[in-house]
Amino acid sequence: MPSDIWKKLQKEQPVNLKQAFAEDKERAKTFSIRTEHLYYDFSRQLVTSETIKLLCELAKERDLSGKIQAMFAGEKINKTENRAVWHVALRDPSNPEVSDVLKKIEKFTRQNKLTNIVAIGIGGSYLGPEYLAEACRVYAKPGMNLRFIANVDGTDFAQKTAGLKPEETLFIIISKTFTTAETMKNAETAKKWMQEKLGNSPEVIKKHFVAVSTAKDKVAAFGIDPDNMFIFWDWVGGRFSATSAVGAVPLSLFLGFENFKEILYGAHWLDQHFLNTPMEKNIPVISGLLDIWNINFLGYKTRALLPYCQALSKLPAHTQQVEMESNGKLVDLSGKPVDIDTGEVVFGEPGTNGQHSFYQLIHQGTQIIPCDFIGFIEPQYPVGKASNKEVTHHEELMTNFFAQPDALAFGKDDPLPHKRFPGNRPSSSLLLKKLTPFTAGLLLAWTEHRAAVKGFIWGINSFDQFGVELGKVLGIKVREEILKHHQDPSYKPNNLMLEAFLKGKLPD
Amino acid sequence: MPSDIWKKLQKEQPVNLKQAFAEDKERAKTFSIRTEHLYYDFSRQLVTSETIKLLCELAKERDLSGKIQAMFAGEKINKTENRAVWHVALRDPSNPEVSDVLKKIEKFTRQNKLTNIVAIGIGGSYLGPEYLAEACRVYAKPGMNLRFIANVDGTDFAQKTAGLKPEETLFIIISKTFTTAETMKNAETAKKWMQEKLGNSPEVIKKHFVAVSTAKDKVAAFGIDPDNMFIFWDWVGGRFSATSAVGAVPLSLFLGFENFKEILYGAHWLDQHFLNTPMEKNIPVISGLLDIWNINFLGYKTRALLPYCQALSKLPAHTQQVEMESNGKLVDLSGKPVDIDTGEVVFGEPGTNGQHSFYQLIHQGTQIIPCDFIGFIEPQYPVGKASNKEVTHHEELMTNFFAQPDALAFGKDDPLPHKRFPGNRPSSSLLLKKLTPFTAGLLLAWTEHRAAVKGFIWGINSFDQFGVELGKVLGIKVREEILKHHQDPSYKPNNLMLEAFLKGKLPD
Repeated sequence: MPSDIWKKLQKEQPVNLKQAFAEDKERAKTFSIRTEHLYYDFSRQLVTSETIKLLCELAKERDLSGKIQAMFAGEKINKTENRAVWHVALRDPSNPEVSDVLKKIEKFTRQNKLTNIVAIGIGGSYLGPEYLAEACRVYAKPGMNLRFIANVDGTDFAQKTAGLKPEETLFIIISKTFTTAETMKNAETAKKWMQEKLGNSPEVIKKHFVAVSTAKDKVAAFGIDPDNMFIFWDWVGGRFSATSAVGAVPLSLFLGFENFKEILYGAHWLDQHFLNTPMEKNIPVISGLLDIWNINFLGYKTRALLPYCQALSKLPAHTQQVEMESNGKLVDLSGKPVDIDTGEVVFGEPGTNGQHSFYQLIHQGTQIIPCDFIGFIEPQYPVGKASNKEVTHHEELMTNFFAQPDALAFGKDDPLPHKRFPGNRPSSSLLLKKLTPFTAGLLLAWTEHRAAVKGFIWGINSFDQFGVELGKVLGIKVREEILKHHQDPSYKPNNLMLEAFLKGKLPD
Repeated sequence: MPSDIWKKLQKEQPVNLKQAFAEDKERAKTFSIRTEHLYYDFSRQLVTSETIKLLCELAKERDLSGKIQAMFAGEKINKTENRAVWHVALRDPSNPEVSDVLKKIEKFTRQNKLTNIVAIGIGGSYLGPEYLAEACRVYAKPGMNLRFIANVDGTDFAQKTAGLKPEETLFIIISKTFTTAETMKNAETAKKWMQEKLGNSPEVIKKHFVAVSTAKDKVAAFGIDPDNMFIFWDWVGGRFSATSAVGAVPLSLFLGFENFKEILYGAHWLDQHFLNTPMEKNIPVISGLLDIWNINFLGYKTRALLPYCQALSKLPAHTQQVEMESNGKLVDLSGKPVDIDTGEVVFGEPGTNGQHSFYQLIHQGTQIIPCDFIGFIEPQYPVGKASNKEVTHHEELMTNFFAQPDALAFGKDDPLPHKRFPGNRPSSSLLLKKLTPFTAGLLLAWTEHRAAVKGFIWGINSFDQFGVELGKVLGIKVREEILKHHQDPSYKPNNLMLEAFLKGKLPD
């Protein structure tokens, strides 16, 4: 049953942006949040002050603050798995368990002499660390090379190990349970690759493999030195694990431990902002509430994430995981089917690349896609010179960061119908000083908390992922059919396409 | 006004897949198309034979065949720009203009001694060639290195040129008009980069730069030898240009000319299938009609493209461009606003990576996302050994390709609500023999024609992109404000965030 506040929100009309900006010269100021590190402008969302007030009342009604505090207190809010959701503790310098693991990683990083780091992991053990590695590549230690192998497709292994010298290579096997099918398959292949070249001695594995896992026995059985296993805890969910050893080990090796600490500081800064700032000035809260406004009240169920920053090229894929795995849920915490829409589809590419691709639909399609623009005052690489007549590469990039939200919001009339832009298409803009390990960590935490806000308000569990299980179960059956065919080539499965695959030829 | 057929389709009910498969043992066979190179199974779409019949009637009513023939005949079907849409001619071995350019490219490829190829282009001058390069990387000529610079963000230039020796490097500047802002900015920076290292002699530019363009004067003004300019024609749209010189020059250098020819053969094979096959057995037609069924009659406006193939990692981004730029349109060919939904949002990642990310929402979210699975009988890299007990990497990958569509279609009940899968979520599966230049070209043509089918039926112009113009116009204004600030640092723009950017600091 919708509450009174929900019903009031259903009656709220989206504003007309052209009119709203014309009537209120202060709109850009009123609908923005300015903090030391982030300038968040949501004045081009289709909201009035009343809408924001009602959204904050909705948050109060759903006890958002209480739920945030419970998360920070380490309460077991992941009820289906009876676990805490405590990734904020990973960034809390006062946590002794965390400090111990970080000290061990720091020591390992300082001792390491191997220069080719290959991280084998998938999903949560991959997308967050890869986002951070790309965001911070300009800060990498000279001569260090970091690659990620995620896909079980042999192409990923073959192409990522091409040209690597085994004697200079360190594999990091990242799997909470040390049973993830793709990761263990790649890990076994990595072991063979290493042994073929450096021999079968157990010392080879001890020297060239480390693990990030919670499964000590399995790591030891693989042959990895227990001293080279870095733990995390059951209160760290996969997609929230980038600031645990999952990210710490590869990123400390690649960027240096001090840079990894900066990532933690940035995430911790946003954690504290999230915990301590009143709703109306709280960036993850307001951005999450605006998503709810767009999804549940305006029916806009897809969101575009558009960083004007090539080094953020992997942020959309990581955000896609955090949002869609967390909030793609059909039942509430009590197990009842939800009667509203939950998680949105998130997609995106860095600007300006996306402008030459899918922006056509965003400007002139029949669907409305709310957009998030992210930009920086300073570039990581200063390329080109500023003069009275010329702009730098970064300035050229930023002309687009500033132009696109206005084009979406205000549109343009034209005598020719195909040149008309309807406008009133919502977006938010986030401006930061510079992309550094600190701000990369901050953006990571923003992504995490924004998704959590929505789950708290919808009353769903954003922290489990049972939706991935059925595919695994059915996969086991297919694997059995393939093995039956290995044993008996005349074996015929009850699936025409699988039959073609086993026969090795397309049907006539 | 909806036609009778449209109204009949509105009354059609989506099938229940569990029931439909139980009642009809032949369903997998009936709802599939088998050709020499492609096995397309759409039995898990929510259709009956009647639905398919009505969709084909709709296609007849909208004169789909006539429109396809007009496209192949080179008629000026891009009416807003008064141009033909004739990319199929690029693959037609009987076209003399095309053959001449290809001969010139072949000659250039054979003479080239430079091993670092850097293609500078954006949007249509980038995404198609990059998709093909990644798909065919295993076929690359030994020692050849191909990189793409698209983004105007200096990070893209700096990182892609890092470590390259200028004396071994060839820049290919790809821009139809030779005025694309990002491309020309990167081209100028490339020129400086080269001249700083090899000197200012015009010979340096002549040796290390070639162009793919239609603008002879501008190419010459840049300093490129007219002999090293490769043309295409106004009847080749950007997003349909991968099989023109736009793709031919970088890909022939990277893969060898013979492999590029294979790409053309594959695209041509699909072109002929598209032109000559009756609708009911025509894969681009049926896949386009199924998209219409999902978008317009079931309301599923987002589609996931899920290649179980790491080498197809760039196919989703290319498809996103082809679909969303072509069909994100608000007005029909006569300029009247459409009264139905047009182009869908397309996103995707290779399997199995996506399974550990956004598949949660696809299985258990409140939105239904139709999925396209693509798989191959043989891998590009055979990794791992098959035994009675073990599967190869490719077999492990393919267990997922076969398991996921069934998990989506049939779901699973469970006493625990969060472990329930509703099922009845539609997908199609496409199986091919192996990913080669031929099949990569074939998939490219499938992508192009599938989008065109939808546009033909909706009666929109899929071949213009006026939706990208307004952002460019507003960008010019922002650039002027930045230049004003260069000239007078006290200049204050009428935009708070832009003011912060120009001041170089976040507001207090």
